[in-house]
Amino acid sequence: MEEYSKSKTNRVKRGANRATYNVEKINTILDAGFLCYVGYIYEGKPITIPMAYSRRDDKIYIHGSTANRMLVSILESKETSITVMHLDGLVLARSGLHHSVNYRSVTLFGSLKKVEKDADKTNVLKWIVNQMVPNQWQSLRPMYQKELDRTLVVEFTIETASAKVREVSVLDEPEDYDLDIWAGIIPIKQVAKYPIADEGKPKKMKIPKHILNYYEANK
Amino acid sequence: MEEYSKSKTNRVKRGANRATYNVEKINTILDAGFLCYVGYIYEGKPITIPMAYSRRDDKIYIHGSTANRMLVSILESKETSITVMHLDGLVLARSGLHHSVNYRSVTLFGSLKKVEKDADKTNVLKWIVNQMVPNQWQSLRPMYQKELDRTLVVEFTIETASAKVREVSVLDEPEDYDLDIWAGIIPIKQVAKYPIADEGKPKKMKIPKHILNYYEANK
Repeated sequence: MEEYSKSKTNRVKRGANRATYNVEKINTILDAGFLCYVGYIYEGKPITIPMAYSRRDDKIYIHGSTANRMLVSILESKETSITVMHLDGLVLARSGLHHSVNYRSVTLFGSLKKVEKDADKTNVLKWIVNQMVPNQWQSLRPMYQKELDRTLVVEFTIETASAKVREVSVLDEPEDYDLDIWAGIIPIKQVAKYPIADEGKPKKMKIPKHILNYYEANK
Repeated sequence: MEEYSKSKTNRVKRGANRATYNVEKINTILDAGFLCYVGYIYEGKPITIPMAYSRRDDKIYIHGSTANRMLVSILESKETSITVMHLDGLVLARSGLHHSVNYRSVTLFGSLKKVEKDADKTNVLKWIVNQMVPNQWQSLRPMYQKELDRTLVVEFTIETASAKVREVSVLDEPEDYDLDIWAGIIPIKQVAKYPIADEGKPKKMKIPKHILNYYEANK
């Protein structure tokens, strides 16, 4: 599949010129982050919960406590959607109306199931940790059975999706370009600062290479 | 009011030790950003839309086109919630389970109404632009009537809310502190890069002081 099919649910109406349904482009946006916003309905109200995730092929994995109200609710109701957004810049136009932001955002719709087997759950947790910081999992102590037992792992299969990307400069009304008003972009970036070692042994250890690599790639 | 009352909807169950209902703390988190995640229900599914906002007292203002599906939907159904989150750090523990992030997040529940009067709408749009970059509105050309006419401005009155904040170091199992595993925090920050002038006059103009101030405060 190269493109997600368009339905009433995922078709972008506002700013359709910025929309894409391309699977590869959507995956690239998903792989650039690790925090998603998961929607669920509680007593008739839509509530959004930020969550760590990992993507593998057309699956998004999230996890939490077995008592997590949101995860239990979406597994039961099957009603959810997942949103990921990266803010790339502030668009300062000559008029209020044309103020905007540059961004990459994705909204996903799909089906849900609980990951049951311990080996599969462990694999998913590895992917989630490694989506945050690549190669981090291999340096950790193995999970205890009791930790696995109290962790709920949910697999979300993307069935349809859309992305919206704005990555252009200011777009003002034609007659406004002659005004003596400064306009432009303030680029915005999420950056990592130098890692801070925890008390005890880490203070005396070298920071592992994969963590320094993360810092260098994101500073 | 100093604290939002706790109800079944807004009471934090998971990680209750990190929860606060304090109005001032919640306002401080809201004032540190300008992007919120608004939930709505479309054909039975909860969908989350990122939106610019401004806070004034117990009101959150958002806006969009008069044809915006989400805004029209929440005004009609009255069912929404608003989430704001700031990511402050990656918490790299000695075990997978204790990996976490440092963050400040808020979830708001409340009532909605359309802002009708042109003068009020204009004021709100000024607040939204200025929440993004302080003092930006005063340098812009005034809005046209036709621009106001096609803009839908929504006032959300916060009725109940909760915040969750994690701002501590790694919290591992007691027996894990002796392991030869590096643990620590990678601080994360959203930063501004140097402003890029738009084609035309801005290329020849000095960058206005309020924009340089924003850059200096956020670089």
